[in-house]
Amino acid sequence: MAFTYLSNYPLEEAREIFLKALEEAGLKPKVERVPTSEANGRVTAEAVYARICAPHYNACAMDGIALEASLTYGASETRPVTLPENSFRWVNTGDPLPENYDCVVMVEDVIETEQGVQLFGAAVPWQNIRQIGEDIAAGDMVVPSFTELSPSALGALLAAGVLEVPVIRKPIVGIIPTGNELVAPSANPRSGDIIEFNSTIFSGMMQDWGCETKVYPVASDKSEEIISSLKNAIAECDLVLLNAGSSAGQKDFSVEAIQSVGTVVLHGVAIKPGKPTILGLTTRGEQLIPLVGLPGYPVSGILVLEQLIKPVIALMTGRQVEKSGFVEATVSRRLVSSLKYLEFIRARLGKVGGRIVAVPLNRGAGVVSSFVKADGIIHVPQNVEGYEAGEKARVELLRPMSEIEQTLVITGSHDPLIDEVIDIMRRTWPDSFVASSHVGSMGGIMAVKRGEAHLGGVHLLDEASGEYNRAYVRKYIPEGKVKLVRCVQRSQGLMVAKGNPLGIRGIEDLPRLRYVNRQKGSGTRILLDYLLKQSCLNVESITGYEREEITHTAVAAAVASGTADAGMGILSAARIYDLDFIPICKEEYDLLILESALSMESVQRLISILQSNELAARLEKLGGYQIDQPGEIIQWN
Amino acid sequence: MAFTYLSNYPLEEAREIFLKALEEAGLKPKVERVPTSEANGRVTAEAVYARICAPHYNACAMDGIALEASLTYGASETRPVTLPENSFRWVNTGDPLPENYDCVVMVEDVIETEQGVQLFGAAVPWQNIRQIGEDIAAGDMVVPSFTELSPSALGALLAAGVLEVPVIRKPIVGIIPTGNELVAPSANPRSGDIIEFNSTIFSGMMQDWGCETKVYPVASDKSEEIISSLKNAIAECDLVLLNAGSSAGQKDFSVEAIQSVGTVVLHGVAIKPGKPTILGLTTRGEQLIPLVGLPGYPVSGILVLEQLIKPVIALMTGRQVEKSGFVEATVSRRLVSSLKYLEFIRARLGKVGGRIVAVPLNRGAGVVSSFVKADGIIHVPQNVEGYEAGEKARVELLRPMSEIEQTLVITGSHDPLIDEVIDIMRRTWPDSFVASSHVGSMGGIMAVKRGEAHLGGVHLLDEASGEYNRAYVRKYIPEGKVKLVRCVQRSQGLMVAKGNPLGIRGIEDLPRLRYVNRQKGSGTRILLDYLLKQSCLNVESITGYEREEITHTAVAAAVASGTADAGMGILSAARIYDLDFIPICKEEYDLLILESALSMESVQRLISILQSNELAARLEKLGGYQIDQPGEIIQWN
Repeated sequence: MAFTYLSNYPLEEAREIFLKALEEAGLKPKVERVPTSEANGRVTAEAVYARICAPHYNACAMDGIALEASLTYGASETRPVTLPENSFRWVNTGDPLPENYDCVVMVEDVIETEQGVQLFGAAVPWQNIRQIGEDIAAGDMVVPSFTELSPSALGALLAAGVLEVPVIRKPIVGIIPTGNELVAPSANPRSGDIIEFNSTIFSGMMQDWGCETKVYPVASDKSEEIISSLKNAIAECDLVLLNAGSSAGQKDFSVEAIQSVGTVVLHGVAIKPGKPTILGLTTRGEQLIPLVGLPGYPVSGILVLEQLIKPVIALMTGRQVEKSGFVEATVSRRLVSSLKYLEFIRARLGKVGGRIVAVPLNRGAGVVSSFVKADGIIHVPQNVEGYEAGEKARVELLRPMSEIEQTLVITGSHDPLIDEVIDIMRRTWPDSFVASSHVGSMGGIMAVKRGEAHLGGVHLLDEASGEYNRAYVRKYIPEGKVKLVRCVQRSQGLMVAKGNPLGIRGIEDLPRLRYVNRQKGSGTRILLDYLLKQSCLNVESITGYEREEITHTAVAAAVASGTADAGMGILSAARIYDLDFIPICKEEYDLLILESALSMESVQRLISILQSNELAARLEKLGGYQIDQPGEIIQWN
Repeated sequence: MAFTYLSNYPLEEAREIFLKALEEAGLKPKVERVPTSEANGRVTAEAVYARICAPHYNACAMDGIALEASLTYGASETRPVTLPENSFRWVNTGDPLPENYDCVVMVEDVIETEQGVQLFGAAVPWQNIRQIGEDIAAGDMVVPSFTELSPSALGALLAAGVLEVPVIRKPIVGIIPTGNELVAPSANPRSGDIIEFNSTIFSGMMQDWGCETKVYPVASDKSEEIISSLKNAIAECDLVLLNAGSSAGQKDFSVEAIQSVGTVVLHGVAIKPGKPTILGLTTRGEQLIPLVGLPGYPVSGILVLEQLIKPVIALMTGRQVEKSGFVEATVSRRLVSSLKYLEFIRARLGKVGGRIVAVPLNRGAGVVSSFVKADGIIHVPQNVEGYEAGEKARVELLRPMSEIEQTLVITGSHDPLIDEVIDIMRRTWPDSFVASSHVGSMGGIMAVKRGEAHLGGVHLLDEASGEYNRAYVRKYIPEGKVKLVRCVQRSQGLMVAKGNPLGIRGIEDLPRLRYVNRQKGSGTRILLDYLLKQSCLNVESITGYEREEITHTAVAAAVASGTADAGMGILSAARIYDLDFIPICKEEYDLLILESALSMESVQRLISILQSNELAARLEKLGGYQIDQPGEIIQWN
């Protein structure tokens, strides 16, 4: 329903239509003059010419004497020339060349004798003089138009007597958040409040692109309020972002508001996320003002700004649109995409065994943390149905390839200690990069086996042998070429509400409770299944068995919120949420590492951290861990 | 003399000694807390953990009804389930999931009939719900230490209830300029004044590296004044740059000043330029403060900051030292360097015929404009004597390789119109990059012939045929593979003082004047030689024949400054300096272009500019040009 009225322009076409509309309507940068000394990083609006020469006078380049070179002609070691009095003048470096003199002889070659000053060699005219204009001549173009001023360019301009420089004025971008439920960021929001953080994200992006920003108060979902806020912004800004309400549903007022103050150029672009985008324009006097209706989810908004608005900003700031780098990467799992849209899927990237692997992240348009973790964006073109695992896809880079190539890729079971290890690594070696994803223990085994990760955390109990990890690795990676590195022993148990009001004692109580589970393939799920079997309990008897979370903390959060009575997890997660913890067993959480990665500097760093007092102290604080020979390679054959 | 007391540490060693001294003395970043919404681009000082979950409640992800999924079990197209009254609740997207319900059915699937609300399919628990913590769970590490905060990271932090974030405080760098002759930037400096622009350059660099800066008033060359200024800066700053007086001569007070307030770690580094560098340190209470004595010439100062101080700043800002890119490039001409130093030579870079060519720029340490033009820095290692033309050298990149590869390289005779063409090109196509160097017409012919430039301006009169350019190209590039593109006709003449006080009529008057010449190989020099010959004048008869400048404007500057009476040049240069102009002849200034470059987009752009009204208008304003079929390829065989 909501999308009925949207058009579906392919991205390139939408971009071209909008840019053409803006250029035809006369969008161009505005100019201001700023002191040269404050113009670092600004972009010249016009060519800038030298007002004076640099140096601005003929300057002595040595300490010594200034004289006419012709006086010295014929002088040699054996036939020195004695200079007549008043035919020369003592000078220091930087002094102006005295009038009627044309060279400088350095002090070391000036011999004072009883006969007077003598020279034992001939000078040539203009020697040891920094001639006027040697660096820059007045009238020379010092920098052309549309050039970002570097610190040395500022130096050159000042040397050339240019005290003020015409630069492109930073466009002011107005940002209007809309929505009844929006509240200012808070650590104690009420249920149903939606924290308004999009304006912070969009402001940051606009500032990074050379704009100033002005965030307006939240407008509620009323047409007249949105129109009034839009009018205010148009009166004060050079471009306006309206967020959200950009779709075509009953509560979407953006398109009507933009229409009432200007023109809608197009509404609806064939991208996902980001489809309900409005591109429009209006004028304030002679000035053209682009108007943009952005979708509400942060990920959608970021992508629309990157893909459609960045070139508009480039036009207004006189900067080049930086072309994104792309890389061909192997997709780690199957990706299904619609033929109707160009789809953008955030991904972690890493180089493992010489191959660039893209691990897709959560596709939810509300999952802003995925942008924090993402190294790149997989582009699934319109008319492509997706990719099979192992196929190559085109990935837009969000970080330099050089960083990605150095990145240690950790994929496996979640434990907060992994984040602590990463933090210690960055503090100790700020040139370290680590990408970690939580996919459960089985996911980790498969990622390492397939060469998509250098290592991963695993805690897998083999029912038959009661042995942790080794049995699974033997079974799933019979080809070897991997090692297990000892990490920690940790307590698994049931996390339940503070004070344990339901009097839960153990697994046997689960059938009478609302449970929250971990995802398939996670070590904790496998442990639960084993425990249920031991207790002769059927999974169907457990309410909430199918409710899945992918981290210990997310399970704890569900229990803490009261929507579940119990979930299996580790002590440290229970502590964070102030939950009671019913210990069930101890398990071995180890790291499965590609043998070929053992020699990597980053793996060596990681192992040294496992053995460090710093980590031991942090584990102590988290609680529930025991360590014994951490970092040791476990022998299993 | 001046360098007697300096040591000569190899660069790497000096860097290591200084960093080690600072680390051992406990140099580390300082921390401050800032509002998350203002932390864009800042670097985290500690790991930051989520305070709340995002979403912070179980949120309906669709408009529809919330209910218990178990009520719908068994529902199908043929056997709909009728929901008891009060067993469900209508909800909108974003609403909190009402208590005791565990799923949402979207409005399109909710059928209202006379019997009540019916569902024709079963729901599964937790469908259409954004579960608490789906994005981020409270307690999760959102960003580790020493991580630059991106706009989306700010969004994630705010979503996680983190309103303030511990970041590394920007170090305050104090900059103290010293020197009696220093004056504030001015368009009318007096002879002997040295314009103080180093502090602007150094400030810009420090700001680009994440610091704040404080520039102190100029201290004059007195030990006590410098020490007092240094003490002020130490009281207020986290690092102090003292500029200049860093050598060991009589007027160099820096080392003594630094010694009197702290410790000199080392004095003298085996680099050129930049040898007289002082690296020191002191403390303010518990805080360690690095002290740096920088050489006076801007180019030296820039290089010392880049090579030695950047890693110190990185340590203080928690940022990575960006590793410079390097490229192997073919050196266009012979470079002689001392075995005693690692020498840095600024260079233009361009890709011509598939090869990266480095054209060395003026090596003068005072020539700050060379840094504006430079694309890279040739490193001539200590213990290497230099390179022959055509040899490969290691060049540090100052611009991205992708830009360099797109750059149009123009090397040849100087004419201000080339700069105007470049300016028009940047205004029209901001993604254009042009590197132009002035080496005279013969230099241009040789650069194009050797494949070091795509094109170059030439104006070379063949004495025998009276023909411009074609004869020279035939002679020097017999192998062909080049084209001449018609550019302009221009007036050459004698530039003389305003009002022509010496009554100069033409070439015949030169023997009684002080002349200023152009460099060997320039078209203007060749023209002069031809004219002298025609007038039966000997070059020895011309005073100043050996005084060389490399551009028309530099010649005009020499005449305008009164140190020469006449120089040959073009009308536009005479006009800039308000000089009288005695026309001597018209000449053809054409562009010599590699045939293989003709298809390049940038060459096509350039030709279209030659044919444009915009350029014609600018030439009219410059004066002395005639155009006739510009951009046409000249046939000569």
